[in-house]
Amino acid sequence: MILVTAIAAAALAVVTYSPPPTLKWQQVAPGVWRAQVGKKEAVTLLSAAGSVPDKPGLAKLPKVTEAPIPFEHAGGELVENHAVASIPLSKDEKLYGLGLQMHGSDRRGGVYHLRMDHYSSGKDRLHAPTPLYISSKGYAVLFNTARPIAIYAGVGNRQGDPANPTQRDRNTDPNWDPQPASDAVEASVQAGGLEVLVFAGPTPLDAMRRYSLYCGGGAMPPKWALGFWHRVPLSFSAEQAESEARQFEQRNYPLDVLGLEPGWQSSSYPGSFDWSPVRFADPAGFMKSMTQSGVHVNLWENPYVSEKSRLFEPLHTYFGSHTVWLGAVPDLNVPAAAQIIRDHHKQVGVDLGVSGYKIDEVDGVDVWLWPDHARFPSGLPGDEMRQVYGVLWQRELDRLFHDSGKRTFGLVRGSNGGASRFPFAIYSDTYDHREYVTGITSAGLAGVMWCAEARSAANGEEWVRRMQTAVLSHIAQLNAWSDGTKPWSFAGYEEPVRKAMQFRIEILPYLYTAFAQYHFEGTPVIRAMSLIDGGGETDQYMLGDSILAAPMFAGEKSRKLRLPAGRWYDYETGEYAGANQVIEVTPALDKIPLFVREGALIPTIAPQLHAGSPASTLIVRHYGDVPGSARLYDDDGQSYDFEHGNCAWYKLTTENGSSGQKTRTSAGSDWNDAYHEIIWRHIGSKH
Amino acid sequence: MILVTAIAAAALAVVTYSPPPTLKWQQVAPGVWRAQVGKKEAVTLLSAAGSVPDKPGLAKLPKVTEAPIPFEHAGGELVENHAVASIPLSKDEKLYGLGLQMHGSDRRGGVYHLRMDHYSSGKDRLHAPTPLYISSKGYAVLFNTARPIAIYAGVGNRQGDPANPTQRDRNTDPNWDPQPASDAVEASVQAGGLEVLVFAGPTPLDAMRRYSLYCGGGAMPPKWALGFWHRVPLSFSAEQAESEARQFEQRNYPLDVLGLEPGWQSSSYPGSFDWSPVRFADPAGFMKSMTQSGVHVNLWENPYVSEKSRLFEPLHTYFGSHTVWLGAVPDLNVPAAAQIIRDHHKQVGVDLGVSGYKIDEVDGVDVWLWPDHARFPSGLPGDEMRQVYGVLWQRELDRLFHDSGKRTFGLVRGSNGGASRFPFAIYSDTYDHREYVTGITSAGLAGVMWCAEARSAANGEEWVRRMQTAVLSHIAQLNAWSDGTKPWSFAGYEEPVRKAMQFRIEILPYLYTAFAQYHFEGTPVIRAMSLIDGGGETDQYMLGDSILAAPMFAGEKSRKLRLPAGRWYDYETGEYAGANQVIEVTPALDKIPLFVREGALIPTIAPQLHAGSPASTLIVRHYGDVPGSARLYDDDGQSYDFEHGNCAWYKLTTENGSSGQKTRTSAGSDWNDAYHEIIWRHIGSKH
Repeated sequence: MILVTAIAAAALAVVTYSPPPTLKWQQVAPGVWRAQVGKKEAVTLLSAAGSVPDKPGLAKLPKVTEAPIPFEHAGGELVENHAVASIPLSKDEKLYGLGLQMHGSDRRGGVYHLRMDHYSSGKDRLHAPTPLYISSKGYAVLFNTARPIAIYAGVGNRQGDPANPTQRDRNTDPNWDPQPASDAVEASVQAGGLEVLVFAGPTPLDAMRRYSLYCGGGAMPPKWALGFWHRVPLSFSAEQAESEARQFEQRNYPLDVLGLEPGWQSSSYPGSFDWSPVRFADPAGFMKSMTQSGVHVNLWENPYVSEKSRLFEPLHTYFGSHTVWLGAVPDLNVPAAAQIIRDHHKQVGVDLGVSGYKIDEVDGVDVWLWPDHARFPSGLPGDEMRQVYGVLWQRELDRLFHDSGKRTFGLVRGSNGGASRFPFAIYSDTYDHREYVTGITSAGLAGVMWCAEARSAANGEEWVRRMQTAVLSHIAQLNAWSDGTKPWSFAGYEEPVRKAMQFRIEILPYLYTAFAQYHFEGTPVIRAMSLIDGGGETDQYMLGDSILAAPMFAGEKSRKLRLPAGRWYDYETGEYAGANQVIEVTPALDKIPLFVREGALIPTIAPQLHAGSPASTLIVRHYGDVPGSARLYDDDGQSYDFEHGNCAWYKLTTENGSSGQKTRTSAGSDWNDAYHEIIWRHIGSKH
Repeated sequence: MILVTAIAAAALAVVTYSPPPTLKWQQVAPGVWRAQVGKKEAVTLLSAAGSVPDKPGLAKLPKVTEAPIPFEHAGGELVENHAVASIPLSKDEKLYGLGLQMHGSDRRGGVYHLRMDHYSSGKDRLHAPTPLYISSKGYAVLFNTARPIAIYAGVGNRQGDPANPTQRDRNTDPNWDPQPASDAVEASVQAGGLEVLVFAGPTPLDAMRRYSLYCGGGAMPPKWALGFWHRVPLSFSAEQAESEARQFEQRNYPLDVLGLEPGWQSSSYPGSFDWSPVRFADPAGFMKSMTQSGVHVNLWENPYVSEKSRLFEPLHTYFGSHTVWLGAVPDLNVPAAAQIIRDHHKQVGVDLGVSGYKIDEVDGVDVWLWPDHARFPSGLPGDEMRQVYGVLWQRELDRLFHDSGKRTFGLVRGSNGGASRFPFAIYSDTYDHREYVTGITSAGLAGVMWCAEARSAANGEEWVRRMQTAVLSHIAQLNAWSDGTKPWSFAGYEEPVRKAMQFRIEILPYLYTAFAQYHFEGTPVIRAMSLIDGGGETDQYMLGDSILAAPMFAGEKSRKLRLPAGRWYDYETGEYAGANQVIEVTPALDKIPLFVREGALIPTIAPQLHAGSPASTLIVRHYGDVPGSARLYDDDGQSYDFEHGNCAWYKLTTENGSSGQKTRTSAGSDWNDAYHEIIWRHIGSKH
């Protein structure tokens, strides 16, 4: 009884009802409040991302006239080695977000131990464990910490809290509640401090916009990146890769990006970061040939450095204490290390025309990654480094491409809060189609993008349905690294697959505008129904302002979906679908259930093989029986000149869809309009 | 790029190969070494358990002549907020233990984030997350911390470690290894300190013995607790409970303990801790009636105090900051609180004859328990309190019964390192039969006991097989709290169930001796094959010194099992089964595959309804064709007088099984031999 004696001698802290003391809340941007529990931490999510708030963007959001939450009840404190925040919650509030979740929508009533990891099936270990939640009441909260964090989302009751529900006897009371209602979200990290940021709405979507803009705005990818991507098998040579690209053209399938997997490197796991002299004897020649065929090249890599790599020696003082697959782990928080990495990627990749990277395995699987207690030169412990390592790689590669003046779009296996502005989409080793679609919906609630890539299928029907989902996500990709599948691999199913890929090209002006909204206004490209009208569906979502997508799954001939308020029309046929109701559709295999809101205009282009090729004719699709209008954004599609005003916003209007106006709404730019011709089409009518 | 600038200004810690510095290892008991990383923590697992090493017991273990591990390579350090230990590992070493695991045997190659919880299906959240591993090389390591801990069991390679395997190119080398061999177990906690204890062997079983004895020895339950237990449905009244007990007697089924579930209390979830005046109007009368019928009463409770409870006011300054089902959580590390709890249990329970408790829901489920950051008067944060809360309750109830002079045996839903000496077995809400059997094997590797209770079944066959497993675990229990199942519930299957229950009574002298070995010598009652001969089986195990048990599962008419070295005989028939080989058996439904080692004697008694009733005739079963011997322990079976020498050890020997000797081997006790008659039976022969 050693302990008892020791404690008897100490003074006891009496615990009665003691909510954490109110924090000092300070408005740090329009509609954004900040508070600090304990000490400021050396690294946070936003500092790791190098986030600089987009103040002009934030200034354009709705004025906030009242506090988004009752700040007087929003407290925090240190409890032993935990920094704790407590944010009040009202009775009928729903909570969304808490990372790139693959199941469900409403997070209230759960406990989330958010940690960067290879996603398996739970709610805690995610490819993007963003500690951000959005309330149905129209605000968002970010726990801006790079630590693994525990979030009690409306779970738990404090002893003596007068707001607690009445105690009931489970023996006899049928109204006994196994999880009594709680009036707070509590979060804690094992650290000396925790920063909390609150983003006002007034709507949940506004709150999400405010979050994105506070992180610096959303990513602005090049146009070509919105076309179709195809990754070739592991150890393809230059000749094989070129042949694969040629086949797309010969068979008339769109292709903008060809992805090379580990075999482009002279060695991998750990990597050399140099071209294989065997499989790619003439990298410059290969890159030139690809570029000439209008196809961009994306290179796979994971960040673990072989001792045989040219990078090893210059980086050797900047490695962490532990290896991954025996490869050394460079600490990108060390500026000199980041510089070495950027310089090498410039020389070996960007200068040859490489368009971007796929940063693999920055997320985890415990037995592969460094341990929680790994030591890094910049001082971050392993667990914190793991939360942000994918963000650091995005930051450095984004900087490299920005410095080069060429936009990029890439893939990354792990991201986190603060990374909205980085042009990278997450992907996963899992392959459940329903989880993939849920991932599409939840990405926008985590401030990240998601690539629901297709890889293989048990049969042609599944292949078509997966490819249809792929083109409805942030990057439209076939990843054949393991299976060698091609769009035309399933005989008899070539046409519906081509049609889905062409649809992706067709909506380029619409999709590009949605990305501009993300970049300049913070609005996620793809929006969960929870952000639209509080709907909890995770198998349907809004793609941009006006298209409702409801992907099909193999084995299902029909599905139900919910049309929000307003009248909705079939994207393709213009057939009236319904208004504010649940409908059941039975789409043919070649058809993606897509619906357009009445009064919307969808700016499109005619089919072409490369999204990156210039298009001068705009085809504007008008739906419904009321006058239509839409916004359109354009720029050169590849450089960063848009940051200096070389871009334009337009307003498209029509009375009846057979003719209309395109009016420039942004001023003061030297951008020359690229769409010289407009074809107006009235697609949908109730009559 | 705020961070980058900040770090640029700071001095960088160059990380090259830097294993943690060697710790100062100090021998603290015969064959037990201790080292401290960082500062000594206020609470550890062993301090929470109030462990006092059994020095006389330890002194009797084999002398240790060489260091169990190369201590010069066993290091530790602080890395930011982590305390880290690194214990060397040789190439062909296997690791067992790491808590009450429900899958597999060898833990090498896994990462374990050990945390107290309701077991679901993983390897991290366990009812007993004991951070203890046993090496096939014959030593054990305990990370003596009450913190949640991450253990990298032979996972991870340090940068620059000359012992690392050669780097290989995954692109081309078929020998590329996804998980390169590691030469250490690394463990870390988020805390300022971590204590490490190393227990020498020479065998793995010796290491386990040393661990148990260092914790104060194993539990010594009363004899009656080794009989059959039956828990009645949730809201049974005194009359219903008495009737249920009577039925066991009338139908000739053994019964020693009747368990009452939440309904014995006037309110539950949260609890009143007082008898229900409705269902138990006369607790004293009820208890007297039960005691007279030879049946002991065990009371369910979870530790969460209703504001309507008489305990609430006296305890109110000793509660944690958060509730569980709105019930207040008393801090048992506060001596005054513990005293109040003990006094109440004495008055309401022990003084009336209550024989023990079932301490429910001390383990977790995050949405039910207090958060990691909960504050407790004694200073423990919530996550640390959760690791040891079940241990604290065991400690206090054990003390209460000890003070009362009556031995107890109870159930608890969460335990941990240091708790070996507490007479409690863990149980679970899960119900997978194979997992239950694995639990039986792994309990002994976690220093805890496990109750593979039967509750219900889909059919009679499953019921029999589950009841057969129940009687082969530390507590033999039917838990009918939810289903109301009785041993005779499946028509046509009454007899095999009765036979299994009678077997449990029959082996009482053997089983009681095994518990005495646990108590005095530290040897687990049930031993995984890994402790016996390094076997990895998790569906067979040793019960005591000489019986090999291989439970059957429903739907299987036959099974394979491995007989270790030596010749083995069927327990029941004495038929020769094999030697050092895998055999396949096809047991009838009423038969449990049990095998006895040649030369063993199994001391048994004749069938009786209560293990707690006196038995004066010993039936000694002899197996094989060589002379037999066995040890036998005895005492009064209920008091603590054995601690003062009122007990005896005997040696049983026979030449041929038809006659033999019982010789007292322990000296100086006033114990009067209870077995006045011995019947010798030769059961098994090869000829």
